[in-house]
Amino acid sequence: MPPNQERRRLLADAGLRVLAADGARGLTHRAVDRAAGVPLGTASNYFRSRAALIDGLVERIGQRLTPEPEFLRRHEGLPPTRELFAEYLRDIVRRLLRDPHVTIALFELRLESTRRPEVAASLRSWRREGFAADVAFHRRAGFPGGEREVALFHHAIDGLLWDRLTGPLMPQEPTDEIVDALVEGLLPD
Amino acid sequence: MPPNQERRRLLADAGLRVLAADGARGLTHRAVDRAAGVPLGTASNYFRSRAALIDGLVERIGQRLTPEPEFLRRHEGLPPTRELFAEYLRDIVRRLLRDPHVTIALFELRLESTRRPEVAASLRSWRREGFAADVAFHRRAGFPGGEREVALFHHAIDGLLWDRLTGPLMPQEPTDEIVDALVEGLLPD
Repeated sequence: MPPNQERRRLLADAGLRVLAADGARGLTHRAVDRAAGVPLGTASNYFRSRAALIDGLVERIGQRLTPEPEFLRRHEGLPPTRELFAEYLRDIVRRLLRDPHVTIALFELRLESTRRPEVAASLRSWRREGFAADVAFHRRAGFPGGEREVALFHHAIDGLLWDRLTGPLMPQEPTDEIVDALVEGLLPD
Repeated sequence: MPPNQERRRLLADAGLRVLAADGARGLTHRAVDRAAGVPLGTASNYFRSRAALIDGLVERIGQRLTPEPEFLRRHEGLPPTRELFAEYLRDIVRRLLRDPHVTIALFELRLESTRRPEVAASLRSWRREGFAADVAFHRRAGFPGGEREVALFHHAIDGLLWDRLTGPLMPQEPTDEIVDALVEGLLPD
């Protein structure tokens, strides 16, 4: 990776930590510089405005939520069974809960989008593109259902993440089993 | 209602508006006084500390999320059909989306609970009590399933509200139909 692309990532990762630790109001270029351990002024060099910083964080969240290429390779071309679909979802949930601050940062931005139109615009296009890509993946893999079902899984998984990150209702219940119950009910035959 | 109970409610409602508009960091006793249009110092008279204020807001959210007594009376004792269960959920979703700032305030507190143990403690006991009451209601009404199913509906409805309040993936899809699809899939036969 070229050095300035690497630094951009390092700054975006620091921005995600700031968002998770201090909320959207605490997200300033200075706070990002401090969290990244770089000279003051660095973050504003890479992200010229708050809107550019938000765009950079949204982009970085996207990279961090993408499954490992190795995981995808291992599962590519397998028959579209319910078990395979469940395995994809279990992997998503495991990854999102392994780095809780990335999910918390995303939730923080989504809340901020109710207040700031520029955050709303950045997130809306990102979420819609991600959703379209998920629907395309779903169809290409041959799973039953389409937009409606993929949206239902988005809702249920978001709610599950909220639950796990903010005081679970049933803490003793393994998330893998909750995911399996969702697939059992919501994936058409 | 006794006058000081009424004033407590008015202050708590103002606190919910502050939370939704400015986030948890903007929630101060002064901001609540200003939003309620009362003399400075009033909110700290009713809620002696920030923790007491948070408890008051959580309590008020609970009151605002409770179905209308008239709605409950109208449906009490009906046979536990899937359609009746769907009607309860549709009512919850409609009410929560009618006053979006109450739901946004709750999400704001849930995020804040990842940072502040006193907020986490207040929300955790409130959510667990609410969950136990929901499970008891579910059983008493004679609906199939128990804790696990009620938790799945909590997750899915939270995710649906989150979607609707922060840039819907399928804005043209009526929420009543999404709720029906969830009941179809997640309520056991």
